Amino acid sequence: MHGWFPHVVRVRFAETDAQGIAHHASYLVWFEEARVALLAAVAGGYAAIRARGIEALTTGVEVTYERAAVFDDVLTVQVRCSEARGARFRYEYVVERDGERIATGSTRHATVDATTHRPVRVPDWLLGDLLNQSPRLGS
Amino acid sequence: MHGWFPHVVRVRFAETDAQGIAHHASYLVWFEEARVALLAAVAGGYAAIRARGIEALTTGVEVTYERAAVFDDVLTVQVRCSEARGARFRYEYVVERDGERIATGSTRHATVDATTHRPVRVPDWLLGDLLNQSPRLGS
Amino acid sequence: MHGWFPHVVRVRFAETDAQGIAHHASYLVWFEEARVALLAAVAGGYAAIRARGIEALTTGVEVTYERAAVFDDVLTVQVRCSEARGARFRYEYVVERDGERIATGSTRHATVDATTHRPVRVPDWLLGDLLNQSPRLGS
Amino acid sequence: MHGWFPHVVRVRFAETDAQGIAHHASYLVWFEEARVALLAAVAGGYAAIRARGIEALTTGVEVTYERAAVFDDVLTVQVRCSEARGARFRYEYVVERDGERIATGSTRHATVDATTHRPVRVPDWLLGDLLNQSPRLGS
Repeated sequence: MHGWFPHVVRVRFAETDAQGIAHHASYLVWFEEARVALLAAVAGGYAAIRARGIEALTTGVEVTYERAAVFDDVLTVQVRCSEARGARFRYEYVVERDGERIATGSTRHATVDATTHRPVRVPDWLLGDLLNQSPRLGS
Repeated sequence: MHGWFPHVVRVRFAETDAQGIAHHASYLVWFEEARVALLAAVAGGYAAIRARGIEALTTGVEVTYERAAVFDDVLTVQVRCSEARGARFRYEYVVERDGERIATGSTRHATVDATTHRPVRVPDWLLGDLLNQSPRLGS
Repeated sequence: MHGWFPHVVRVRFAETDAQGIAHHASYLVWFEEARVALLAAVAGGYAAIRARGIEALTTGVEVTYERAAVFDDVLTVQVRCSEARGARFRYEYVVERDGERIATGSTRHATVDATTHRPVRVPDWLLGDLLNQSPRLGS
Repeated sequence: MHGWFPHVVRVRFAETDAQGIAHHASYLVWFEEARVALLAAVAGGYAAIRARGIEALTTGVEVTYERAAVFDDVLTVQVRCSEARGARFRYEYVVERDGERIATGSTRHATVDATTHRPVRVPDWLLGDLLNQSPRLGS
């Protein structure tokens, strides 16, 4: 998917439930892992944010499940930062298995000062990096 | 809250993360525990559903986080079934701490035949029970 | 069980796995919840420890599983502090369902200064409280 | 480590706790992921076991924590099957970070018929494969 960053996860046995499928809360953990990987791929990324004493809080999540995932499935979580303004970020996700979409979602975040917990803008260069990742990350 | 079913959870240490707050995925687990408790309170509830060979899949979730929860916080998850038509359910949630709202959310579900995994209507009497729980459950 | 502190948990759906039983890692989370409850019941407990700038690290765990637990099972985790010397604690656990033992375990902990992370003795009065909890907590 | 199978995990944010370190229960999940990877590497592996209608239950675990792991740490879980007789398996684990050991552990398992839940021997060729993996898996 053009402009998206792909991150691969394999469904752990501990992530399944008694319905024999990956528990729906697991997707939020995969989303988080995918955006950490995206930030690591973007110059500076998460380390640069924390080095400035900034923390990113999660302010909202939303997932739509289309097909179940099962133990040992290899999934690709496509992620992109779809919006970043001031102290607010938004990421979108598409989960695929063998090229077929099985879930979509989004998460919203706010950056705050790690000490005062007040909203704080993230540096413009980082915002730019995140929103313009596609040309560099390709895919 | 009138017409809502209250379910109490205490934040586990394992549910916190390195930001010192309850991880955002934990709320989905509390929502699930709350709707299981609601179904148990409604005559027949979950047992009655399963006894008919019906499984309820989660098809969508959405959470908005307003205040962080921390270790050992006692939270009340208010839950109600806001919609139930044919094979589709929708629940709404409000998470409170000391009477203050800290998060809201909703989940969507579809009932399927446990064997064929085809959509299946839930019995009318159960739908009625869920939607009319308020007069009997009070609160 | 004489001298043990009982803590009740109900198996969450999210804690089950594709074998249809509670995942074996869940027991460590229940153990933790049980010892937090025990500490809360002992005067001062966890709050008193933290107020002194002390953190308790987990240095070892061990569980033996005898019977599987399934979704919605109501389990009693019996816990007691079986050893506490200097900066070291040890807890023992018995998990029961309807009076039948389904698992046993133990955890080891070390108390450290929250800032320096050096081992630090816990106050004698707390050690005494923990080890002598039985006369007061009864059961 | 000679005769051990290495499996790499990266500590997820969701796996950390309010002490700022990976929660101690996470290690059991990593152990499980490592032995699944080991079985996948051994001819037939897990798929071969399940195809015969056999399930492997976890009957015991034990972990000793020497150093804390933190968010984003890259850990190598070394695993080997140290014992396999009849219906019983035992695995050993060493968790390393940058070549330094931070934890060790072991898990015990029993194979049962997936339908009757009675103990059942695993095929000799698989036992042999597991115990003799070292020559082939090298490292």
